[in-house]
Formats: sequence, structure tokens, C-alpha cells
Amino acid sequence: MAVMIRNDVFSCFVFYGVLLVIKMYIIAIITGQVRLRKKAFTNPEDALRHGGLQYYREDPDVERCRRAHLNDMENILPFLFLGAIYSMTGPSLAVARLHFLVFFVGRVLHSIAYLFALRAPTRSLAYTIAQIPCISMALQILMAVAAYA
Amino acid sequence: MAVMIRNDVFSCFVFYGVLLVIKMYIIAIITGQVRLRKKAFTNPEDALRHGGLQYYREDPDVERCRRAHLNDMENILPFLFLGAIYSMTGPSLAVARLHFLVFFVGRVLHSIAYLFALRAPTRSLAYTIAQIPCISMALQILMAVAAYA
Amino acid sequence: MAVMIRNDVFSCFVFYGVLLVIKMYIIAIITGQVRLRKKAFTNPEDALRHGGLQYYREDPDVERCRRAHLNDMENILPFLFLGAIYSMTGPSLAVARLHFLVFFVGRVLHSIAYLFALRAPTRSLAYTIAQIPCISMALQILMAVAAYA
Repeated sequence: MAVMIRNDVFSCFVFYGVLLVIKMYIIAIITGQVRLRKKAFTNPEDALRHGGLQYYREDPDVERCRRAHLNDMENILPFLFLGAIYSMTGPSLAVARLHFLVFFVGRVLHSIAYLFALRAPTRSLAYTIAQIPCISMALQILMAVAAYA
Repeated sequence: MAVMIRNDVFSCFVFYGVLLVIKMYIIAIITGQVRLRKKAFTNPEDALRHGGLQYYREDPDVERCRRAHLNDMENILPFLFLGAIYSMTGPSLAVARLHFLVFFVGRVLHSIAYLFALRAPTRSLAYTIAQIPCISMALQILMAVAAYA
Repeated sequence: MAVMIRNDVFSCFVFYGVLLVIKMYIIAIITGQVRLRKKAFTNPEDALRHGGLQYYREDPDVERCRRAHLNDMENILPFLFLGAIYSMTGPSLAVARLHFLVFFVGRVLHSIAYLFALRAPTRSLAYTIAQIPCISMALQILMAVAAYA
């Protein structure tokens, strides 16, 4: 094993980071299943394979899955960067794990709130909670490297 | 050169990762070319520059390029994370290269199938093949760091 | 602090990378503010909370913010990968900082040009300028690791 993987904070970050990547993959699978169930395909060639061009159409449930996925990309992908760098700034394991865990729980709740269309502002609240550790990590990183601008 | 770049597995990952980033850039360039050829612009200011507001419109060929690009982001960007971490878990070069190569070939085929609207399920098959090394890497990483959750 | 953070080039990259992540977060916040001001929500549950289902609708200003955000993801996220790897290939600090700074300024100008709908080709020019250091880094990385393909 390489040096970095033996770093406790980095390993903790990797654990939650990979779980969130898997969570994104699951949303992609759900999107595909909803497309098949609602017979709503975004490409004519897919519609042709599944019954005809009339199924080359949009569907609100499919679009909801798409938006949940896009929002994940907007937030989880930057986290994969921030978390990795933050792990290298030497935080205590307890504080770092709290950052990762809050983000992880916030994003899982966000996905649930999105896919099940839970009453507003449940989804926005989950989004905001998940952003707090990201802002915290971003500021701590900036303070650690500001001298190198 | 830094330590990590001297790691064979990591260097192999970087090689395919950078090629895939360039592949994504090429799709962006193709999108721009299709916009100019079909005269279909997503911003009024672009349409005005290229003949008038009537060209501020959607076009199915442009939208196809956009979907290919978005699907790349959904899959290639997480690969850039998974591949980097996986390289640090100490896999053999032969096994690791197989993971990276299968993903690379799968994603190149996916782009070709998307842009040329190849008959279904060519594109979905390429997507699925490319996901296999990603799932494999994700699980191997989780096993390596599970103790740090 | 870990080894990598003591690397000058990497720290310089991290500084601009984190600023660009914050820039993306700001676009997300602006999008939310425009949604509230124009009363245009992408989810029925959000519209219901803010006055009724008639506000479950698209708005050109909101869509403009969305496109700016998506374009950021297409370009800033790959930069976060390229810049980190490039930092490990041992470039001089002056040359590396120039790469990061050109990308940073290009992307900030791109966001301004997008959100204020500046006359074409301002936005495309900013995009192109920002791509130059990315292509440069990609090629330099490929040359550094080509032996490991």
C-alpha cells in the first residue's frame, strides 16, 4: 500500500468519497429503470429498440432523476477534490470525519428528498447542510496555501 | 519528478485519464462545430453574431453531442477519482492496466456509438462494459479503507 | 502538514483550484437567487412552497445561470485533475503559476461574460484562453507518462 492510503484522515475521506460515487452510480441505474418503466427515451435509437419512436419523449419522473444526478455532480465531484486536499492539511481525525460524515449524510438525504419529491424545503435543507463542511474545508485549505498564490 | 509519478500503476492511470479528458474536450469542440454548421445556438448573443435571433434554437444533433458530453462527465470524472485512489492501493500493474484499458475502450466506443447514433444497445453496452472496472475499483478501495470509516 | 502540501507548485495549484470551486458554488447561489426573484422553479414541490404550481416553469435567466454552471463543470473539474497531476511532473513554479493563473482569469471572465450576456465572442474567447493551459498541461503530462501506457 502506498503512503497516502496509510494516512487515517485520507482513508476516512476515501471511504465516504467512494460511497458517494457509488450513490451517484445508483442514481444512474434508477434513471435507466424509470426510463424503461415509463417508456421515455432521450434517444430515438433507444425508443426504437423499446417499442417505437413514440417513446422518444420526456417524462417528469425521468427528468427528476436527471436533476438529482446533475446536482450530485455539482456538489459531490468538488467534494472529492476538497476532501482529498483537506486530508493533506493535517486536520485531526475526529474533526475531519465530522466534515466527511455531515457531507455524506446531507447528500444521501438530498437524493432521497429529490427522488421522492419530499415537501420543500427538505431537499434545499439537505443541500445546505452538505455545503457547510465543503465551505469549511475550502476556507481551511485556502488558509493553508494562501502564501503560495 | 515527484514520487507518485514514479509509481508505474499511477502513471498508467494518468496516461488513460488524460486521454479521456482530451476525448471530452474533443466532444466540446465537435458540439461547437455542429452548432455552427446547423446554426443552432443556446445563447441569443451567439445567434446574433452568427446571423440573427432565429438561430437561437435547439437542434437534435447539438443535443446529442450535449448528452454524450454529459454522460462522459457522469462517468469519466468519477473514474479520475477512483483510478487515482485505486492506484494507491497497491494493485499489480497488469491487473490495474486491464481496469484502465477496459474503461478507456468502453468510453471511446460509447462516444462513437452516441455521436453516430449507432443502433441500440451498442451505446448501453459500451457504458456497461466501462462501468465494470469502476465498480471493481470502488469495491477494492472500500475493502482497503473500510477500517477507517 | 503532509508532504504534498509543502510542494510549492502543488500549493499554488490548490490555491487557484479552491478559488474556482468557490466560484462554482457562487454560481449555484446566484441560480437560487434568480429562481426566487423570477419565481421559476424546476420542481413542483419548490413552486408550491413559493406561491403555487404556476411557478413550476422555465426562465431564460435561470437557464443562463444553469448553462454557466454546466460549462464550469465541463472545464473546471477536468482542470482540478490536470493541475494536480501536472504539479507532480516537476514544472518550474513560474511556468506552473502562469498556467494556473491564465486558467483562473479565463474562467472568471467566462462566468462574467455568461451571466451578463456580454456580446459574442467575449465568452467564447474567455473559454478558449482558459483551454490553452489545460491543453498544455495535458500534453506535458502525456509526455511524462507515455512510457507507461
